Order: sequence, then structure tokens, then C-alpha cells
Amino acid sequence: MPEPADADGVRRVAIERWADGASRAGSDGVAHEEPLEIQVGGTALAVVMRTPGHDRELALGFLLGEGVVASAAELASIRHETVSPDPEAAGNVIRARLRDESRLDLEALRRNVYTSSSCGVCGKATLERALATAAPLEDAARFPAKALYELPERLRAAQTGFAETGGLHAAALFEPSGRLLVVREDVGRHNAVDKVVGWAAEQGRLPLAGCGLLVSGRISFEIVQKALGARIPLVAAVSAPTSLAVRLADAGRVALVGFLRGRGFNVYGAGERIA
Amino acid sequence: MPEPADADGVRRVAIERWADGASRAGSDGVAHEEPLEIQVGGTALAVVMRTPGHDRELALGFLLGEGVVASAAELASIRHETVSPDPEAAGNVIRARLRDESRLDLEALRRNVYTSSSCGVCGKATLERALATAAPLEDAARFPAKALYELPERLRAAQTGFAETGGLHAAALFEPSGRLLVVREDVGRHNAVDKVVGWAAEQGRLPLAGCGLLVSGRISFEIVQKALGARIPLVAAVSAPTSLAVRLADAGRVALVGFLRGRGFNVYGAGERIA
Repeated sequence: MPEPADADGVRRVAIERWADGASRAGSDGVAHEEPLEIQVGGTALAVVMRTPGHDRELALGFLLGEGVVASAAELASIRHETVSPDPEAAGNVIRARLRDESRLDLEALRRNVYTSSSCGVCGKATLERALATAAPLEDAARFPAKALYELPERLRAAQTGFAETGGLHAAALFEPSGRLLVVREDVGRHNAVDKVVGWAAEQGRLPLAGCGLLVSGRISFEIVQKALGARIPLVAAVSAPTSLAVRLADAGRVALVGFLRGRGFNVYGAGERIA
Repeated sequence: MPEPADADGVRRVAIERWADGASRAGSDGVAHEEPLEIQVGGTALAVVMRTPGHDRELALGFLLGEGVVASAAELASIRHETVSPDPEAAGNVIRARLRDESRLDLEALRRNVYTSSSCGVCGKATLERALATAAPLEDAARFPAKALYELPERLRAAQTGFAETGGLHAAALFEPSGRLLVVREDVGRHNAVDKVVGWAAEQGRLPLAGCGLLVSGRISFEIVQKALGARIPLVAAVSAPTSLAVRLADAGRVALVGFLRGRGFNVYGAGERIA
């Protein structure tokens, strides 16, 4: 059994339910969304809007994805801090301490990571920057098509928060057999992926050779970039990829599986990984 | 007829199509995704991953949403710049010039807009900051439930890029009669909303009193924040809102309509706007 997704990511709210021109009072479960401030060495690096739960994993995955740390071993500690007496703020600040903070250039990190350069702003330059940080994969893993078919149903069964709210994205890691290793839900697609990568880092499982990443939504460039950084050789989704996601998958040798529905799917790059 | 969505947001790619354990070569249309660098006064403010097309609207909506300008009248010009001889980079830099650039604090803008404060990082503080910029609405517009029922079908009919790719979000403005004023598609949900707000700004239609905003995806805090900033009294979606979106809608008196399907929907706040 995979570690269950956080079941607390739901808030009940009062609503009016309209049907056929008439309304009545009711209630509904909605995806819990709160800001999380991620601090490094006592300085606020970013605030992400996220679903509370698995915050350490989210922060660790974020720091890995942004290149602030190269591994969990560079961290001295990572934990929630109380910065306000307001009980509503509890749990919304997490602070990472590095073993060696002297090399940090937080001001540069806080600035946009993409800046104008002589090579221009374009898909090609964006791919080149991504590949400069994470080289193309040479992973021999093969994934049987049959195991992929079963993934959406397994993910849906593990999405407890989505079942209640219809408003949470999910990300999961799986083995070529189709077994799910971990499932995380979040209001943000990127956050859900950061949480599973953070989970893997805490488990000492990085790099994620031989694993696949399954996401509930669409596959954008940044999702493939996060997978490539974690060395995941296959990304799959029920939905569609973008053009730049396809190009990065192709250049980085990440198999990209889209429209995974019923007993079929499309492969957009590195098709040799499907058996 | 609403102005049609950009039909060029599609790229053809070669794929392998798997069905029942066998694969064959084919092709598929995917959502076009490229970086756009937004410059103000010659300095790069941000790079967003977007679907090319309607870039002026996107940049203008972004600058309004971030509070860089309060109206289109503050701009001296906004246009694409060529910064690289690489043809692939063409069209990926847009530069806004302000009539008065002396008051800009770009360094502050480039930093994360959310920073630690004595009131703590929490939903309440986040709402207060949003409402400090955009006061609660006092809009007398009423939207008949019957007109809302027809919106999803109208939006779908206008989503030419989605029909081909399954990978583009859409945002639209509509009148209480249900008539769509404009539809924009983008790989990013926020970008699609920025594009319709930018369209309205270029048309001299801000504030958008008496209009509704329809989005194809989920309704997060930031979507409601953008609507409130543009003074839109109703936000509707086929999908679910988040908890903080509901709270901001309630505090800002924005009617929030979710799960708009068939002849029914849920109202999560400011229900008095539905007739």
C-alpha cells in the first residue's frame, strides 16, 4: 500500500445549491488552501499557496527543484516556526537551515530565475538552461504498457481529498509494475510534485531511477523539469502535455505519456521506455 | 459573437499511439508553450510560461494584477522587442514603458510580493492584503441562474485550441444575459485571466462592473484576487473553488459559482447576485 495522501486537505463551507432555477442551503467540502512561507537561513525565500500537510516534503522538494540544495544531506534542519501569536498562522512558516549557509546568494535566488541573456528568451534557451542543471537521462528502466493502463484508477482510489472536493491535484510515484509508492495531493500541481520529490529525498530514494511520476492534471514544461531534476525516467498523465514539455522530455530522454485512459495512451518522447 | 480565442496556440508533434498493447506512429496537436519576458522600463520584471498570442493583453493584465500600473493610461507604450537574432526568440520579449518611470521600485516588485510581517503568514493576513488593494465590491448586478447554465457550452464552443489539444485553459468575460464578450486560451490558468483583463483594459472597459468571469479550471485564491482587482462581481467555473478563494469571495462580495454543470451549480459566496 502506498503511504496515503493527506486526508485533512478539506474545509467544509456553507453554500447555496442551485438546481433547475431554485436554491437551497447546503454545505460542501473544498480544497484547503493556505500560504506557506519557505525560509532559508532565517530569510523568506518564497510564499507558495498550498494545501497544508506534508509541508516538510513540499519545502524540501521546492528547495531541490530551485537548486537551493542538491540533496537533503545539505540541510541541518527543516521545521515549522511560529512567527505570530495568531493561531491561524500556526504551521504556515517553515524554516530550512543549511549546514553551510555561507555560500547562499539569497538575493539572486529571490529574483526571477529566468533573466534576459544574450541567447534570447525562447524555448530552446529554456531547454538548454534546464539541461545545464540536469543532464539527459540514461535510465534503462522499461515500463509495460499493461501496468500503465491501471494507474489512473489506482491514483483515483488514493485521492481521498479529490473525492471530497473535486479541487485537489495529485502526484504519485510508481514502479514499472504499476505499484504506487506515494501519493500526495495539493491545490497546486507543482506543489503535489514537490511533495513527492521531497518525500523521496527524505526517504533517501533520490535519484529516482527506475520510477515513474503520475500526475492528475496537464503536463507543463515545469513538471518535466522537476521530473528530470529528480532523475525520473517517465512522466504520465490522464491529460495533455504542452509543446515545451514534449521538447524537454525528448531532449532529456524522459518518456512522456499523455491521455492515459482506458487501455490506451499517447507517448510524446523517449518511447523506447515503453515495453 | 465574442472575439475568437487565438487559434494558433497549437503545435503538431510526432507521437506513438498505444492501444491494447500495440503502438503505431501518429501525430497530435499540443498546446503551444513558450516563455514571455515582461520588461518594464527596460528591466526584466518576470518571465511567464504562456501560449503565444495576445501577448500585449497578457502583459497589461499582469501589470495591472501585480499593481505595477493602476490603469492602461499610465503606459506610454507596450510592444514586442527583439533582443536576439535567434528567430525562435522572436516575440518572446514584451516591453512596457510608463509615462512616469521615476516612481517605480522594480527591485521591490521583483521580490516576492508576500513577505513576512508582524501579522503572520495566514489566510486572514493574505485576505487583508488583498482587500487593502481592492475594496469589497458594491456592484448591484444580478445574474439569472438560467443564463449561467448555458455558459459552459458557449465557452467550450469558443475553445478552439482546447478542442484540438485538450491542454489549454480558457477564461471569458460575460454579461448577465449570458453573452460572451471575449474568450482567451492559455496553458496557464492565470495567464488566460490576465489576457481577458488586459483585453478589457485595452478596450477602456475597466472596471468590469456588471460582468462575470468564467474559467475552465478550478478557482484558486489568485483567480478571485484578479477578479476583485478588475472589479468583476461574479466568478464561475465548471470545477471546484479552494477554501481561500471562498473566503476572499465572501469578504470581497464576489459571487463564486462552482460546479456549473447541466442545470445546476453551487454558490460559495455573495449569493445575492444570483436571481
